Amino acid sequence: MATKVHVGMETEMNGNGVPEKVFNNWKKRIHDFSGKMKRFPGWLCRTIWKVGRDDPRRMIHAFKVGLSLTLVSLLYLMEPLFKGIGQNAIWAVMTVVVVLEFTAGATLCKGLNRGLGTVLAGSLAFFIEFIATKSGKVFRAVFIGAAVFLIGTAATYMRFFPYIKKNYDYGVVIFLLTFNLITVSSYRVENVLKLAHDRFYTIAIGCAICLFMSLLVFPIWSGEDLHNSTVAKLEGLAKSIEACVNEYFDDSDTKEKQERSSEDPIYKGYKAVLDSKSTDETLALYASWEPRHSRHCYRFPWQQYVKLGAVLRQFGYTVVALHGCLQTEIQTPRSVRALFKDPSIRLAGEVSKALMELANSIRNRRHCSPEILSDHLHEALQDLNTAIKSQPRLFLGSNSNQATNMLALAAAHAARQKPERDLGVSLSSVKTDSSALMEWKTKRVSEQTKENERKVLRPQLSKIAITSLEFSEALPFAAFASLLVEIVARLDNVIEEVEELGRIACYKEFNPDNEIIVTCEKPPVDVTKSQLPSHAASD
Amino acid sequence: MATKVHVGMETEMNGNGVPEKVFNNWKKRIHDFSGKMKRFPGWLCRTIWKVGRDDPRRMIHAFKVGLSLTLVSLLYLMEPLFKGIGQNAIWAVMTVVVVLEFTAGATLCKGLNRGLGTVLAGSLAFFIEFIATKSGKVFRAVFIGAAVFLIGTAATYMRFFPYIKKNYDYGVVIFLLTFNLITVSSYRVENVLKLAHDRFYTIAIGCAICLFMSLLVFPIWSGEDLHNSTVAKLEGLAKSIEACVNEYFDDSDTKEKQERSSEDPIYKGYKAVLDSKSTDETLALYASWEPRHSRHCYRFPWQQYVKLGAVLRQFGYTVVALHGCLQTEIQTPRSVRALFKDPSIRLAGEVSKALMELANSIRNRRHCSPEILSDHLHEALQDLNTAIKSQPRLFLGSNSNQATNMLALAAAHAARQKPERDLGVSLSSVKTDSSALMEWKTKRVSEQTKENERKVLRPQLSKIAITSLEFSEALPFAAFASLLVEIVARLDNVIEEVEELGRIACYKEFNPDNEIIVTCEKPPVDVTKSQLPSHAASD
Repeated sequence: MATKVHVGMETEMNGNGVPEKVFNNWKKRIHDFSGKMKRFPGWLCRTIWKVGRDDPRRMIHAFKVGLSLTLVSLLYLMEPLFKGIGQNAIWAVMTVVVVLEFTAGATLCKGLNRGLGTVLAGSLAFFIEFIATKSGKVFRAVFIGAAVFLIGTAATYMRFFPYIKKNYDYGVVIFLLTFNLITVSSYRVENVLKLAHDRFYTIAIGCAICLFMSLLVFPIWSGEDLHNSTVAKLEGLAKSIEACVNEYFDDSDTKEKQERSSEDPIYKGYKAVLDSKSTDETLALYASWEPRHSRHCYRFPWQQYVKLGAVLRQFGYTVVALHGCLQTEIQTPRSVRALFKDPSIRLAGEVSKALMELANSIRNRRHCSPEILSDHLHEALQDLNTAIKSQPRLFLGSNSNQATNMLALAAAHAARQKPERDLGVSLSSVKTDSSALMEWKTKRVSEQTKENERKVLRPQLSKIAITSLEFSEALPFAAFASLLVEIVARLDNVIEEVEELGRIACYKEFNPDNEIIVTCEKPPVDVTKSQLPSHAASD
Repeated sequence: MATKVHVGMETEMNGNGVPEKVFNNWKKRIHDFSGKMKRFPGWLCRTIWKVGRDDPRRMIHAFKVGLSLTLVSLLYLMEPLFKGIGQNAIWAVMTVVVVLEFTAGATLCKGLNRGLGTVLAGSLAFFIEFIATKSGKVFRAVFIGAAVFLIGTAATYMRFFPYIKKNYDYGVVIFLLTFNLITVSSYRVENVLKLAHDRFYTIAIGCAICLFMSLLVFPIWSGEDLHNSTVAKLEGLAKSIEACVNEYFDDSDTKEKQERSSEDPIYKGYKAVLDSKSTDETLALYASWEPRHSRHCYRFPWQQYVKLGAVLRQFGYTVVALHGCLQTEIQTPRSVRALFKDPSIRLAGEVSKALMELANSIRNRRHCSPEILSDHLHEALQDLNTAIKSQPRLFLGSNSNQATNMLALAAAHAARQKPERDLGVSLSSVKTDSSALMEWKTKRVSEQTKENERKVLRPQLSKIAITSLEFSEALPFAAFASLLVEIVARLDNVIEEVEELGRIACYKEFNPDNEIIVTCEKPPVDVTKSQLPSHAASD
């Protein structure tokens, strides 16, 4: 009651036409905002620290940009230099801001595009100026207007050509810009040649500073990033497969596992591989502009890295499907799984060992060991095969009494080797009720409004029609085994591409004596986040 | 013999120190080049035509850019306008070239970023000018240099913050640029306020022209593109699943199928889904800047489209795994597959019907039919279950005589319903030879050098260790069936997200009477290629 009176009093106090609800709403917002403001400095410090710790090269890059800008400002600030170049020093400042990118390849790509665009636009502008110069003022204005329209339309349309877009997009923009500047200026300014000349020189100075900074002062190579990200992807897949198979045969509580699904080591392992296409292609594009930075080989084999990336993605999709077996509705009883535990875990171990060997060979730039497909892998496959064949009746439907007996028998057999905890529970977990569909339909509508913030990768909810059936309980295990075998088959593709890479990039021969095992304690740098996005632009 | 003499003569004729080989090499190169030059006009015409046909809006965009540039050039060309604005009209030209992007959202994002960056930089520059103005010339130069260094470093470092990078990257670049221009200019030019003022006005004029052109003249919305690409993805998945299951049970020749794998309808269907992450996120980012363009809803629900895209990718990975079953080494004999043909094809048909219904509901912006999970789907699942249970012995190993007999029996059973062609062949196709590993290892080394241009998605080559084993031949079918069931389970996630989308975007209610079936004859526009990449930049 006391609360009610209090609320009533407040309503009266704010009785100037504003309903209390709106007032409270505002109060709450202001409170929220001030809370945010208070937390802001802490958040800022944490972000600054985290961004730098994730990739210390970012700090180096920031200092490089600051230094370059100061250097280029000197052109303007120092008396003797200023006299020669004049007002146009501004163009050099612009060039540095726009062209100096995170990696050497990106800087080269932008710098050369800028140079090329400026030269081409200058030539074309002078040609048009040469044609228009002898005519009257009005005709000249019309002529310039028409030229601007036509060249603008054509150049913009050209930016949609896939080849141009991929390699020379920035060059076309600069071409358009320079062309318009010179053509339009030429209408009023007498000495356009001088203007273009100065502009060209200052841009060249700006580009020179950028290239010096990015190629010679702590250079950051896109090619290196591509190389490291490929190594990280191979390692991630290796860890993913191992964790996946271990979790499948893990006897500990399932609930607990689902809780931590967002930081799932399996998902973390293959995540980087799945969405790597655009990152890979950007890195490869910039790497293709970089001069070689290895003594051995003619060029950096960026195309082969892209091909290897595509094969790894294909490989990754199979790993995702394998992971899907852990989250599916119908689960093979643990007692049954236990029968195949050893060969499966050994097989996964061998696959991930092979992937690790591939990762190490790329990291050390050497050919991979000829023993990469060891006999152990073959043995593990054979053992899995034997295990499956030794339990032929497992793949019968679970509803017939005979089959259930067989399952129980098999489970008992497994239990002899190892005490089994949850035998009874898992055997009877399949729902027979076929009215589940209707139940589920009604439930879905009422639940819709609640769960707004669900995780995308949460385990399958679909109780519908699937648990209500009596699929053979061994069916999911058959899928799991089949995918495991598929992974071994695809491993072959990966090995082929890595060997091809070693051949093209002139990796050194494998030498078993010199082998140093490198373990990467520090998590590898996430290149996706390091790249400055290319909408570096300006005016 | 005649050839040899001829070759000898030629070698003598080019006897001026250049070996014939090099000469021929050059001749060949020049020949190649002239051939390329001859083909160039034809290639150019085809490319121009193709780029325009793929998406006619590209032509509209090109004309819009041409028109805007002409309009902004008038500022400079026409006498009365020029007097007011002066030399600074150049900034307006620059703004139009850099800011006018393909979609309205991208233009708004860049335009507002540019405005914000300019205003902030201007304020900061005047603050620094205010501090430095009372000191001596040398101190002032040092002070300006230090400010340029510090602000340059800090702003570049800030570009690595994920939030800034995503939304305000271009704004920070413009901030840095404008700040440097004003600060450095202020050292020599007296009336910096006038300079900044003019610059700001001309940029505002440029932005106004851009916004007018992109929002009011044939606007192209990123939100629409995102919407259409989502519809296309759903349809692609539907086609993919149907084609995949049909091909699995197809009795025609396998060779022929593998030939045309590059233009595989299955691959084409899910390809767009797999690598959609970066495109989706870019479109969503630009869509988030767009004003609402629907009467019904408060905002464009771009976040929900991104969420739906993520769920579709998850769904797509399962389809990839299903496709993998078609390419795997151990194949279930056709006679066995035929036993499950009808329920599987019906199940896939129902799934793809549901996906098509979802696509149609999004296309027409209405809620999806409550009948979307029809009883047919449930029936088809039940039938598949019955079919699997009715052949319990199929999942036995194929090497035991008894099992082979069972397979033959099953096949005979199938043959009664339908004449079977290649029964004997497929039953005996599994190699038992375990020395295959060694054979394969030696073969691999010799083949390495030949196959340089293999397709990435070619069928699995790995004969190793897999065909040499005697896995139960039904194992791959079990995987296929299990993945099909998994797809039904994941369909549920997709339906949920689409319904959530309908709720957030205030789609209209489903009305069975008004239902118009829209069939999309024209292939949908590929938005990936339409987007001008954002390294629109300038000077």
